[in-house]
Amino acid sequence: MDVRAVLEAVREGRLSVAEASAQLTDLPYRDLDFAKLDHHRRLRTGFGEVVFCPGKTDRQLETIVRAFMQAGQAVLGTRCTVQQADFLAACGIRADFDEVSRTLVVRGETGDSPKLPGSVAICTGGTGDLPVAEEAARTAEFFGLRAERCYDVGIAGLHRLLSRLESIRSARVVIAIAGMEGALAGVLAGLVAAPVIAVPTSVGYGASLNGIAPLLTMLNSCAEGVGVVNIDNGFGAAMLACRMCRALAEEA
Amino acid sequence: MDVRAVLEAVREGRLSVAEASAQLTDLPYRDLDFAKLDHHRRLRTGFGEVVFCPGKTDRQLETIVRAFMQAGQAVLGTRCTVQQADFLAACGIRADFDEVSRTLVVRGETGDSPKLPGSVAICTGGTGDLPVAEEAARTAEFFGLRAERCYDVGIAGLHRLLSRLESIRSARVVIAIAGMEGALAGVLAGLVAAPVIAVPTSVGYGASLNGIAPLLTMLNSCAEGVGVVNIDNGFGAAMLACRMCRALAEEA
Amino acid sequence: MDVRAVLEAVREGRLSVAEASAQLTDLPYRDLDFAKLDHHRRLRTGFGEVVFCPGKTDRQLETIVRAFMQAGQAVLGTRCTVQQADFLAACGIRADFDEVSRTLVVRGETGDSPKLPGSVAICTGGTGDLPVAEEAARTAEFFGLRAERCYDVGIAGLHRLLSRLESIRSARVVIAIAGMEGALAGVLAGLVAAPVIAVPTSVGYGASLNGIAPLLTMLNSCAEGVGVVNIDNGFGAAMLACRMCRALAEEA
Amino acid sequence: MDVRAVLEAVREGRLSVAEASAQLTDLPYRDLDFAKLDHHRRLRTGFGEVVFCPGKTDRQLETIVRAFMQAGQAVLGTRCTVQQADFLAACGIRADFDEVSRTLVVRGETGDSPKLPGSVAICTGGTGDLPVAEEAARTAEFFGLRAERCYDVGIAGLHRLLSRLESIRSARVVIAIAGMEGALAGVLAGLVAAPVIAVPTSVGYGASLNGIAPLLTMLNSCAEGVGVVNIDNGFGAAMLACRMCRALAEEA
Amino acid sequence: MDVRAVLEAVREGRLSVAEASAQLTDLPYRDLDFAKLDHHRRLRTGFGEVVFCPGKTDRQLETIVRAFMQAGQAVLGTRCTVQQADFLAACGIRADFDEVSRTLVVRGETGDSPKLPGSVAICTGGTGDLPVAEEAARTAEFFGLRAERCYDVGIAGLHRLLSRLESIRSARVVIAIAGMEGALAGVLAGLVAAPVIAVPTSVGYGASLNGIAPLLTMLNSCAEGVGVVNIDNGFGAAMLACRMCRALAEEA
Amino acid sequence: MDVRAVLEAVREGRLSVAEASAQLTDLPYRDLDFAKLDHHRRLRTGFGEVVFCPGKTDRQLETIVRAFMQAGQAVLGTRCTVQQADFLAACGIRADFDEVSRTLVVRGETGDSPKLPGSVAICTGGTGDLPVAEEAARTAEFFGLRAERCYDVGIAGLHRLLSRLESIRSARVVIAIAGMEGALAGVLAGLVAAPVIAVPTSVGYGASLNGIAPLLTMLNSCAEGVGVVNIDNGFGAAMLACRMCRALAEEA
Amino acid sequence: MDVRAVLEAVREGRLSVAEASAQLTDLPYRDLDFAKLDHHRRLRTGFGEVVFCPGKTDRQLETIVRAFMQAGQAVLGTRCTVQQADFLAACGIRADFDEVSRTLVVRGETGDSPKLPGSVAICTGGTGDLPVAEEAARTAEFFGLRAERCYDVGIAGLHRLLSRLESIRSARVVIAIAGMEGALAGVLAGLVAAPVIAVPTSVGYGASLNGIAPLLTMLNSCAEGVGVVNIDNGFGAAMLACRMCRALAEEA
Amino acid sequence: MDVRAVLEAVREGRLSVAEASAQLTDLPYRDLDFAKLDHHRRLRTGFGEVVFCPGKTDRQLETIVRAFMQAGQAVLGTRCTVQQADFLAACGIRADFDEVSRTLVVRGETGDSPKLPGSVAICTGGTGDLPVAEEAARTAEFFGLRAERCYDVGIAGLHRLLSRLESIRSARVVIAIAGMEGALAGVLAGLVAAPVIAVPTSVGYGASLNGIAPLLTMLNSCAEGVGVVNIDNGFGAAMLACRMCRALAEEA
Repeated sequence: MDVRAVLEAVREGRLSVAEASAQLTDLPYRDLDFAKLDHHRRLRTGFGEVVFCPGKTDRQLETIVRAFMQAGQAVLGTRCTVQQADFLAACGIRADFDEVSRTLVVRGETGDSPKLPGSVAICTGGTGDLPVAEEAARTAEFFGLRAERCYDVGIAGLHRLLSRLESIRSARVVIAIAGMEGALAGVLAGLVAAPVIAVPTSVGYGASLNGIAPLLTMLNSCAEGVGVVNIDNGFGAAMLACRMCRALAEEA
Repeated sequence: MDVRAVLEAVREGRLSVAEASAQLTDLPYRDLDFAKLDHHRRLRTGFGEVVFCPGKTDRQLETIVRAFMQAGQAVLGTRCTVQQADFLAACGIRADFDEVSRTLVVRGETGDSPKLPGSVAICTGGTGDLPVAEEAARTAEFFGLRAERCYDVGIAGLHRLLSRLESIRSARVVIAIAGMEGALAGVLAGLVAAPVIAVPTSVGYGASLNGIAPLLTMLNSCAEGVGVVNIDNGFGAAMLACRMCRALAEEA
Repeated sequence: MDVRAVLEAVREGRLSVAEASAQLTDLPYRDLDFAKLDHHRRLRTGFGEVVFCPGKTDRQLETIVRAFMQAGQAVLGTRCTVQQADFLAACGIRADFDEVSRTLVVRGETGDSPKLPGSVAICTGGTGDLPVAEEAARTAEFFGLRAERCYDVGIAGLHRLLSRLESIRSARVVIAIAGMEGALAGVLAGLVAAPVIAVPTSVGYGASLNGIAPLLTMLNSCAEGVGVVNIDNGFGAAMLACRMCRALAEEA
Repeated sequence: MDVRAVLEAVREGRLSVAEASAQLTDLPYRDLDFAKLDHHRRLRTGFGEVVFCPGKTDRQLETIVRAFMQAGQAVLGTRCTVQQADFLAACGIRADFDEVSRTLVVRGETGDSPKLPGSVAICTGGTGDLPVAEEAARTAEFFGLRAERCYDVGIAGLHRLLSRLESIRSARVVIAIAGMEGALAGVLAGLVAAPVIAVPTSVGYGASLNGIAPLLTMLNSCAEGVGVVNIDNGFGAAMLACRMCRALAEEA
Repeated sequence: MDVRAVLEAVREGRLSVAEASAQLTDLPYRDLDFAKLDHHRRLRTGFGEVVFCPGKTDRQLETIVRAFMQAGQAVLGTRCTVQQADFLAACGIRADFDEVSRTLVVRGETGDSPKLPGSVAICTGGTGDLPVAEEAARTAEFFGLRAERCYDVGIAGLHRLLSRLESIRSARVVIAIAGMEGALAGVLAGLVAAPVIAVPTSVGYGASLNGIAPLLTMLNSCAEGVGVVNIDNGFGAAMLACRMCRALAEEA
Repeated sequence: MDVRAVLEAVREGRLSVAEASAQLTDLPYRDLDFAKLDHHRRLRTGFGEVVFCPGKTDRQLETIVRAFMQAGQAVLGTRCTVQQADFLAACGIRADFDEVSRTLVVRGETGDSPKLPGSVAICTGGTGDLPVAEEAARTAEFFGLRAERCYDVGIAGLHRLLSRLESIRSARVVIAIAGMEGALAGVLAGLVAAPVIAVPTSVGYGASLNGIAPLLTMLNSCAEGVGVVNIDNGFGAAMLACRMCRALAEEA
Repeated sequence: MDVRAVLEAVREGRLSVAEASAQLTDLPYRDLDFAKLDHHRRLRTGFGEVVFCPGKTDRQLETIVRAFMQAGQAVLGTRCTVQQADFLAACGIRADFDEVSRTLVVRGETGDSPKLPGSVAICTGGTGDLPVAEEAARTAEFFGLRAERCYDVGIAGLHRLLSRLESIRSARVVIAIAGMEGALAGVLAGLVAAPVIAVPTSVGYGASLNGIAPLLTMLNSCAEGVGVVNIDNGFGAAMLACRMCRALAEEA
Repeated sequence: MDVRAVLEAVREGRLSVAEASAQLTDLPYRDLDFAKLDHHRRLRTGFGEVVFCPGKTDRQLETIVRAFMQAGQAVLGTRCTVQQADFLAACGIRADFDEVSRTLVVRGETGDSPKLPGSVAICTGGTGDLPVAEEAARTAEFFGLRAERCYDVGIAGLHRLLSRLESIRSARVVIAIAGMEGALAGVLAGLVAAPVIAVPTSVGYGASLNGIAPLLTMLNSCAEGVGVVNIDNGFGAAMLACRMCRALAEEA
């Protein structure tokens, strides 16, 4: 029952002032809740839910996944281990698990997510960045955003990047994923007009400081137009790309 | 002379193979250059140019500004000191200098930038973040993007933020600017559906480590949809917002 | 008009459902606002307001102080410079400015704050910590909490600390302020039963890293019962002590 | 024999000056010792003892636990492994071991701890913070302080926090536990009047730097009234809460 | 077909302007590509290829190695595990695997690399630096550069270093490898006239911070003439030495 | 009156038990105090007092210095500014101020300190370390320890160090002072048999991180026998040397 | 043959100038070597040798140990694993292995080391510091220095430390070993007159940063007279203590 | 007198064994000294001397410069202030002072340095890196190495770099100077075959951490062949380049 329904009931005498007051005291939060759900619904309902798997027991994971399945919703699980995936399979849950990206997708009854306009180009510096890139790509696809994969275009061999440029420029958003020196994001931002989402990765050793080095590189990007997310956070980069492309739909 | 013109000249015997070869050897770079100019033109031509003032002598600054003026272009100067602004004024250059944001705008002959679709909501945690916020706002406005200012809505008094929420939600992009604990970006990303650009500021003392603390907070944002720029980089945040909103125009 | 009044008006037909709905949509925030004000009133009304002076222009500071004066409220200004204090004096505002702690107090019409139960012992490791300690002491006193000063009882001369122990033990809360190695907090927590609020200071050089060294020391305190605030944050330590002692009043 | 008794014995010739001198030289330390015991007795005797399990061999742990059992005292073991708990069980020691919090409680003959006045609200940002929260909750309960659990109220979904606010506000002390961005403590301190004890956790990855990021966030809290303990230190937070609430009893 | 060939074809009417234009549009990148290959050929063709083994599956590694073998090229694998080496052996690939340096060499059909002029002296501070030193030595040798090994000449026993000085001075380049305090590079640069390549290693504990300490030492070298590479990067040091010595050949 | 004297007075009836008790209650601390004084007396009485000048007002400094002068004691002031020294001179206090080391010595009536056995060799890497070295030298001399100055013997020119070795080896303790790479301490510890006290200095730039780099170098010294003090802490190094040499006197 | 012997042989015609020159060219280093041996002999010959076990294969370790045994020398192995100790035992080498300190001692034919004058007091903050303390104690004893163990005297229970003070004060050197906050060294330096060697340990969690926190604490010690060694470096602390006490013997 | 001369004198009875022994004891160091001088002479004599000006008083600087002038040698002063340069001019010393690079050159009587073979290409990312670049360029030229300046070729506008590539490739050594993200070095190393010397600069703000960000970027360079020097160390980069090119001369 929303605010108007409560008010109608009061006016019509179907609800006492005391009862209505009690409901309304709680309403702001439910309202806020609904407001949250409202903008979340656009992300979630239809789009499916996201479950961060680490630190969850097999049984907890199963419970959460089943809950969404019963609601007919699709589920995306991130950073899922092989063991967790195997457990769900053993429980009879049909899921599409990808070992490289460690993502797990359970389709909902209502079919795939509605398509978002535009597309995201996902570029990586090296092959070691693949797991992060695939986490981003599969997250984007789960939410209906087309992902263009441009892997291994690091700046040590600039010609590889330049030869893919046309394809990268056709995307509405670019995700640049790189470890070690992490210069890919800045180079890309100097070559394309779209916003660039930079993902530093923990690929490297020694002075890469588990991803701190490429993180700093990306934050100091000389070319403007770069927004940075946490180290190895392919999921977060994809979600930011989805937010950007959803705005395209609203505008059109 | 572009590639086709060279080829025509060769076919027609007006150009020897040797001369053509020499021209074409150089062409890729000029081509690339034009490609660069092409996507830059959308940012710059019409939009005006940006000059980062620190480290430039008064005379250098004057030379650069005059060069753009002669080309009829508008100029945006960032991190400009009062001394630099005074010098330009003394040189007879008419500029709009804003002391808070330390930005300086010289209008071009061709009038203001064409308007970008959408708008950006610029939110700050405290009054100390004002210079960074105004740098962002004036940069956005310089490039034709409407800026909605929502200052002093830090999370220590959550009701201030909530009371501005409707206005913030109406923007296509949100810039969250905060020093000290820097939690504003994450709170906003949990409340709005638009992409959030987070700007940590060096406001604070002690364990704020000149902005490192809010930078880390923003990178670790629990709510997805946050892209972070360098500490105090209001200009960069606005440019990223402009890139996002320009895509809206393209799509429509 | 609160929720019940709105509902009564609806039931009695004095208010349409549409109008009521509009008012109620806004209510949560105002409610929340009043809730905020409610618990803030206990801190502020009667207690006076606090103004963080850095980054404010002389004129801004004057405006803020006058606003509270017109409301009859006392004001505490922290980190106030001599120049700011002089300016206020030149404006004809009577204030008690203390150069050591850089605090400025303007008395309100309604007299001093009501006394809080208990007292706080403010201990420092060395004489260099005095500004931070006095900021804490004057903040506590401004909010009605008696401050017992135990300065220069650092652990390099343990006998000085032990000779003051009885006096320290009689306080309900202890604030331990120290730079350099910052061991005072842990030593105190091992000697008293009261909660210990630790304030690292930036006093020191080299490996003290502007207060990071004592900050880490205090966070790693072997003795339990220590809560740490930001470097040089005497104000924050006093506010935490006031929160603790206010609870005593509520309980009794 | 106290100072006066020694002096009487000297005056009466029952004790030589040399013997008396020897006893008095030692006295301060024993005095101090008793003083220590005196304020420790309030924590320990009746309240039971605390044993930090890591780094102790199974046999050492058994010996320590048995020593307290023979003294009729209850024991709280923290950071106890399953292996250590199993070993104690195999030794015939009846203990209540909790796997989540890794705490182990052996009841004493004299029954539970006397109740402390007030209660502590223990709030967490996410489910990953549970082990730290339960360590805090079980420590508080072991020492007679009622713990109100408010889990998973992180700021990414602010409505969850707001819906629990009344319950949180009824506590005398609030413990805010959060990893990643760690903004929960500051948000809570802006919403409640009680002192807030902040516990950063090592939950997160990349730029969370094993808990350094939320630690810095909490130290830079814009809202005053926050005291911070070490990363993952649920035990320490609970002990600080107990110290605060014990003061309530004294005052009353 | 290169630029000239295209032009000739156009002049002779064998190629239309449109077709030629299409080919030339792509040419820059291929040109650049060839340029890359051109200077890479000098490193690779004849010299063999380098494969960074970590993060590659056994099967991926086999595929890569076989590809180069089929091209008749030699291959150098770095940071190869015993398991990876065993797998390749089990696949029937004949390789020279060195457990200390974790390098794996597959000879090409065309024999060893052509010799580079000069030689590199590879010095280590202690025996713990051996794996890094051998990675450098075997990389240098793979690319035809003679490596003079001077191990265990750390500065704690300066006489050991001085007794090897003549031999070190006869090399064209010196690689100084050291962990812990990392002073070897600076001492050597003060004793020889050749360029010194410094490699910090992660050998050490505590305040060596996994190699950060010797890294900083080497960057701050009082003696000029030192260039530093990443922690434990023996391969990179050798490649830099090879670049230096290759220049000798060009000059002569 | 010490413990024995009190006891004698009690036994002889010259002091009542109550009066004696009062005196003895205070005695532990005074005892502890005297114990402190006892070992301090050897440092201070006769040796003179040390005053850390920074953060003290001119007037405070004058008061402290006069207090010691009235007690006939010599005073050593460290990190004294030219302004402070000038002020004292203007007050008519005769002091020996050294601008390089920023130390100020006021002679006591009782003449110079008694000589300590042995001597300390004070070695520096470069001329920039002079202020720290002279602070150490003048502190040592103030306390009666002979200082052998061996400046500018950094490892970039090893022969300079080796040529002074005999003189360095004749000292009982060696102080090694160096900035930038800070390798001097480790090299010296490998060449002499005496304990080496290492003082990192903030001389340098960039990656010297204001002295953190040489600090880490010294802590990681491969040669054993090195104890490190804070950055730029020449005074502390000298005091540690004095403690070491005083033990020689006790032993003999 | 030393320099004089060579010269005699030349003068007597038993050695040609060429042969003598060859020998003498090498001599400086051997001289330097002997010089090294000379001051090392006092440490080593008779004292036995020290072997740092980590990173050495079982076979390498056996070879090194046997080499010293054949020379009749005693050997001290540090950071020796149980596996390494077992391997040596299986090889028939009789050694005294201590699991706590991970030290291994093989007695030489010539009996124990000659006693050094004085003694070292080895104090620890907690029981977790035991391995480091025992490494120090057994190293000291191996080199003939008596070690007084004062364990578990951390500052959280100051009375424990004070009750051991007399015993600690009787030592010529004090080693203070502590993790977490690491305040023990500074407290001790304020209570004793002897030089204090501070050893930070990696005992702790979270903000102890694997020993960086106590390291900084110790470097910032307010009490003068503290020299710090690397984290967990019990061996290094003992060697520094031995250097100090050896000087006592020389002086006497 | 060298070793052989001493021996001849002994054999011929012109020198006693005792006198010869004394001379020979000293010889190694003098030998070493000469050896040092020998390889230093190649750098210095003819090449002139280098004086690091910071921290030197005007008078000290004058003395040093005059000493070299009297020896007929040229002098290069680095990081010289305008004040220092003015002082020298006022003393009548004719010097070529360059304000941008803060270098000062005094020509020697013997004319310029002999030319080194090859040349160094000095590339910068932005105009802010100019002072560092000019320090490098003027140092190289002082030592006879031709410097090719390629300024403002940062990766944000890749076409600028590519258009200068031919010129850069013609150099024997490349110096890459960049602040902020510092990606220039890695990009260059992927495009040229020569060794690349990377100089991070402190140009930037916020997360550039005064040059730490580009320093890390350069150390993590994906392209091999990069050696890094300290932040802002243009002088050191040039000296390393000179060492490399001198080897070319030796080889030829």
